[in-house]
Formats: sequence, structure tokens, C-alpha cells
Amino acid sequence: MFRGVLQDISILKDSLDAISSLITEGTFEVSKDGMKLVSMDPASVAMVILNILPTIFLEYNVDKTQNMTVNLSNLVTILKRARASDTLTLELDDNKLKLKMVGDFKRSFSIPLIDSSISEQKIPSLSFKNKIEIEPSALKDGIKDAAMVSDCVIFETSPDTFTIKSLGDTSETKMELTKDSPSLISLQLTDPMESGDIIKSKYSIDYLDKILKGAKSADQISIQFSTDYPLKVKFTAVNRLQLGFILAPRVDTD
Amino acid sequence: MFRGVLQDISILKDSLDAISSLITEGTFEVSKDGMKLVSMDPASVAMVILNILPTIFLEYNVDKTQNMTVNLSNLVTILKRARASDTLTLELDDNKLKLKMVGDFKRSFSIPLIDSSISEQKIPSLSFKNKIEIEPSALKDGIKDAAMVSDCVIFETSPDTFTIKSLGDTSETKMELTKDSPSLISLQLTDPMESGDIIKSKYSIDYLDKILKGAKSADQISIQFSTDYPLKVKFTAVNRLQLGFILAPRVDTD
Amino acid sequence: MFRGVLQDISILKDSLDAISSLITEGTFEVSKDGMKLVSMDPASVAMVILNILPTIFLEYNVDKTQNMTVNLSNLVTILKRARASDTLTLELDDNKLKLKMVGDFKRSFSIPLIDSSISEQKIPSLSFKNKIEIEPSALKDGIKDAAMVSDCVIFETSPDTFTIKSLGDTSETKMELTKDSPSLISLQLTDPMESGDIIKSKYSIDYLDKILKGAKSADQISIQFSTDYPLKVKFTAVNRLQLGFILAPRVDTD
Repeated sequence: MFRGVLQDISILKDSLDAISSLITEGTFEVSKDGMKLVSMDPASVAMVILNILPTIFLEYNVDKTQNMTVNLSNLVTILKRARASDTLTLELDDNKLKLKMVGDFKRSFSIPLIDSSISEQKIPSLSFKNKIEIEPSALKDGIKDAAMVSDCVIFETSPDTFTIKSLGDTSETKMELTKDSPSLISLQLTDPMESGDIIKSKYSIDYLDKILKGAKSADQISIQFSTDYPLKVKFTAVNRLQLGFILAPRVDTD
Repeated sequence: MFRGVLQDISILKDSLDAISSLITEGTFEVSKDGMKLVSMDPASVAMVILNILPTIFLEYNVDKTQNMTVNLSNLVTILKRARASDTLTLELDDNKLKLKMVGDFKRSFSIPLIDSSISEQKIPSLSFKNKIEIEPSALKDGIKDAAMVSDCVIFETSPDTFTIKSLGDTSETKMELTKDSPSLISLQLTDPMESGDIIKSKYSIDYLDKILKGAKSADQISIQFSTDYPLKVKFTAVNRLQLGFILAPRVDTD
Repeated sequence: MFRGVLQDISILKDSLDAISSLITEGTFEVSKDGMKLVSMDPASVAMVILNILPTIFLEYNVDKTQNMTVNLSNLVTILKRARASDTLTLELDDNKLKLKMVGDFKRSFSIPLIDSSISEQKIPSLSFKNKIEIEPSALKDGIKDAAMVSDCVIFETSPDTFTIKSLGDTSETKMELTKDSPSLISLQLTDPMESGDIIKSKYSIDYLDKILKGAKSADQISIQFSTDYPLKVKFTAVNRLQLGFILAPRVDTD
């Protein structure tokens, strides 16, 4: 038995919307600790890690840990039908997820559970050389700039600077945020001993665009990377949910 | 001779816009009682009944009853060119409909009359088991919900409840309005003796979407139906015009 | 060496946006008098004449007159990336145009200079029979009206009236502005002796649409023409730039 009631639907809708641009089916582990989803995109380039905390719910009852696999774009389409003032109830039936929206009138939706074809995903253990907290709009601007001349973006940190750049055949773009930039909230290097080093890695703009759709309701955004190493992007909406993405680097193979 | 002058163009434009999504040519009967149009869509699924009352016009002169057939999408395109403050004059020439818009400057448009290829339409005599007055936004929401899982919607009334639902292969949607819902203005059954019965019929969502485009300027919206029987949708803009649609039911043939 | 710094990017962006819908490459003559561009569209139907005055810049340094050819749509795409509060620096390197935007953070862009394949253009000497100053929105409305029934528009002046009209196979549109219309700022005939004559010429709507994109930041708009003769459209943003277009007439050849 699982039943959850929540009032602010937007954060759930925005997070699942971002995720559904990367993966089509999602398996939630529903337990007393909340609803968790760990999944790899079909091309094995990006991993999604979502934790919906029980504190997001007005009521949250679950008697045993269970898995629930649904088509995410179906789920998002239904969540988008909610009115802002609606209260949403999620309920797990034998083979169905029922969604009830109650406001001016009562609405109910049911979508089938799917037999998950995907085995459980493990979150890889990664060690990063830096951690950047940044205003989402600045990060988006830097990536959009880069998109004009290339399909991938280069992230680079020196001890005092975070740079987003791209190199096209003949054109270039560069955005530089220093510790003075109001948009750069913090910039830390993990190992201050190596602080002279430039840390630099390249990522797909297409994937970053999809990932950044998840930033809408975030209070904080952090990114972490190392040279030619995966990128971790983490959105936190305090007390409500954490949404993380791990994105493989683009490494030039000549 | 026909000449009509009107100041609030929006209601005429919105009504004709809805109608033009169902029928391409429209024959108006222009008489002292106003401008009337009764027409069936090419697939014979929906009938349009429009009465533009003489009271909508500032000036309205017609010396004899006459028919005027025009291409409706041409007419709507021209009406959309009007500025909000413009005064519109409609005038019937030998073989042309002239439209003049006067505001900051003078504009005139003329479109050709068409030889109507369609014989006159009779409004069928129908008897309905119920009558529902409803907020347009609630009706639209219910139909949009249904559109997620099916191409047709089921309308159902019990003595106290109006339900809009749909059944997909594996998914379902349901919106329930009771007499407590602020969006349900009234719900009446025609024959209170049969009040125990469920009245239930199925209609095409595609057609309903087109019909509901006519709701923009409506003060009141009513719908009426019976089990496996046509639906009547009626928009009233008091003292200005009445716009009705009759839509054939979808009956399952197994 | 050329370096220009400017704060209000919008006027430059809007002007180049309009121009880039007509020509793909643009050669600017950069001198102490500002940045000038004179170019013909590939079909030789429209000529673009742009003067960006040194007064638009906060700082403007140029040591010798030089030509700079760039892909205009690349340049416009970059200018569109600017934030409203950004300060833009243009700098000419050996073979690159560098754009720096400084606001909350620093951004830089570089695009390659192109070897211009087009020889210098001369502005033709033309004598017009009239001059009309008009509100851009009225001119746009008249042209949009005409676009419903034809792909070309007829401009016509009599001593007191400016008329924009079009003739389709069966439909017609006409917009009449007299000296009383608030949208018609002024109407002058060059040679009052010939004032009884109707001056009338026909132009491509497709080209006019592109040209009118340049009207966004204009303080004043004037048009000038003669019978079956080119049209001159001129936008002036006082003390900042002048943008002119010369458009060949459509002459019926039967």
C-alpha cells in the first residue's frame, strides 16, 4: 500500500519533466524514506538520481518498500493537467498508479504500471576536483552562448575563475565568472595543494540542455567535475527533493 | 440591399472562427430578424446554427431577405485585421461583400460571393434527457484530460453528478462535478421520473475542441444529451447572438 | 585598429536583424565617421544603406578607414545573446571581430572576417515625387491587409491622401490615410505644380515585410516613391543611426 498527498505539484512536475527528456521509463523505489529513482539514459551517457523526500507530502503512507515503474512522459502529461490550487493524491493499486486532483471539482487519472525491463542501477563512486555553486541563469547563458558555435561546451576552473567556453571551426565563445561575479556563489577546489592546476572537461550541450530543465524549482545548483571526467549537476529544493545528474565527458579521440 | 454597422467586432470574429474550423463555406440568410446560418460539416457529423441578432448592430438595414454565401476563412482572416477601436460596416454589393473598418484611418475589403452548392439545411427536432450549464474552463479541462488517453470522451449524468471521462487501452481519466462544484452552474434532468437512470453518451474530442473555440465570448454555455444520442452545445451572448452546435454521438459498433 | 564601446545594444541588433533578412554578408566601412554598410540583396531588388553614427558609442577609436566583412546572421545571433544591462565592446583583430559583453560576468565572442566577394556598391541617384511620414504600425497594417489577397501592394498618393491597396483575383483591400488621420504625420508632393497627378507604384510585400523589421527602434519613418519607380524607406533613430532601403518597383509586363 502506498498513498501520498501533496499540494505543491510544480516541483514534482518540473523535476519529472526534465527527467522524462532523458529516460522514457522510470522505476521508483517507494519506501518510508521517500520515492527514489536511479536510471541511466538509453545511450548510457547520463544518469539521473532523484530523491523525493517524504516531507514534500502532506500525508505519506507506505507499508512496505516496493518498486513502481511507469512511463514518465505519461506521468508528466497528467501532472501538467493539474490546476495550481489542486491537491494531488498518488495511490498505488495492483497494477495501476492512480492520481486524484481535487480542487473546484474532482478528477482522477490512472496509468498502468510497466514490467521494468531494466535492472537496478548503481550510483558510481566518483571523486571530483572542484565544486561550483552558480545562478542557474548564468549557467544557462554560458551554455547557450556555446551552442552558437559548437555542440559541446568546455567547463574550466582555475583557483579564482570558472570559465564556460566553446570552440567552433572559426568562431569562439567564452564566459568568465570570477569570485567577484554575483552569479558565482562559490568556487572551491577539492585539493588546494593542486590549486595551480587548470581543471577542464568537455560535455554535450544537448544533454546539458535537457538536464537544466530540472533547475526550475531549485534553490541551489551545484556542479562538480574533474579533467576529462564525468560532471555531476545537483539541484536541491530544500526539504522537498534532490535531483542529480551524472554526465559522461566528451573526450576527443584522434 | 443590406448594410450593418457594428462596433464590438470580437464576438462576431470568435463565433465565425469556431464555425470556420468545421465548415469552409457559409450561407447566411440575411433578413430583418438578423443573420442566420445553418450548416452541416462535410462529414455530416456536426451541425452549426448561428443567429446574429440585429441588436448586435448599431445600424442594421435590409430591404428583403436574401442569401449570402462566402468563404468563411477569408471572412475570418479579414475580421482579424480589425483594430479593437474600429467600427465595422458590412455591405452587400451585387456579387461582393464589402467590409469597411474606420478608426484612425479608413480601410476597406471586399470578398466575392460564392454560388452556394449546398441545399438549405433543416434543424432536426431532438429531445434531450438533461440540461447542464457549466463554466467553459471546466468543460475544456475535462475534455483535455480525456484527450490524453482517447480520441473520444464520455459524458454522463446521474441526478446529482455530471461526469466527463475517457477510457484508453490501459489508462483512464475522470472528472466529476457535483451540485457542490462552483463550476457546475446547474444540472437538470428533463424527466424526473426516470431520475434513477444514468444518461451516458460518447463524442469525438476533435469535434468538441473545434466547437469549444466558439465559447470565447459566451455569457452562458449549456450542453444537452441523451444516451447514445446527439449532443447539443449552446453558447449565448445575451442580446447579441446565439451559437449552437449539434454533434452526432460515437456509437461503438462491434 | 578599431574599437567601439556601446551600451544600448538593441538599436544595433534590430537594424542588423532587418538587414540580415535581406543580405547574408555585410561589408562595413569603418571610419572616423562611423560604420557604413551599402549592399544589394542577391536578387538585386533591394539596396540596404546603414550609417551607424560614432555618437551611438561611448568610446569610438579608429586609426584608419578599413573594410570589415562578416556573416550578418552570425553577428545578429551573438548580439541577441546580450543581456539588457551589458556593455558591448567591438574590436577588430587581424582576421576576427571580437565582441565582449560585460555585465554580471564577462563574455567574449569572436567571429571570422570574410574575404568580401562583392565589389563596392554605389547608391543610385533618385528623384522622388513625394515624401510621406507615417506611423510604423499603420504602414504595417496596410501591408498586412494587402498580403491577404496579393503578394504585392500598391502605394498611391493624391495631394491629400496616401492609399495602400491590393487587388487579388476576386478580393480587394484598401487603406486610406488622409491629412486628418493621426497616423499620417506628413504628406508632401515634391512638385506642387503636378499636384493633380496620382503617383502610383507597386512593390513586393515579401521585401517590405523584411524591410519593416528595421522599424523597431526608429523615431521617424519616411517613404518616398514615384510612378513605377523605386521606393525609398528611411528609418531614423536621431543621433544614433540611419537605416535606408531602396526597393525596385513591380512593373506588370504583359
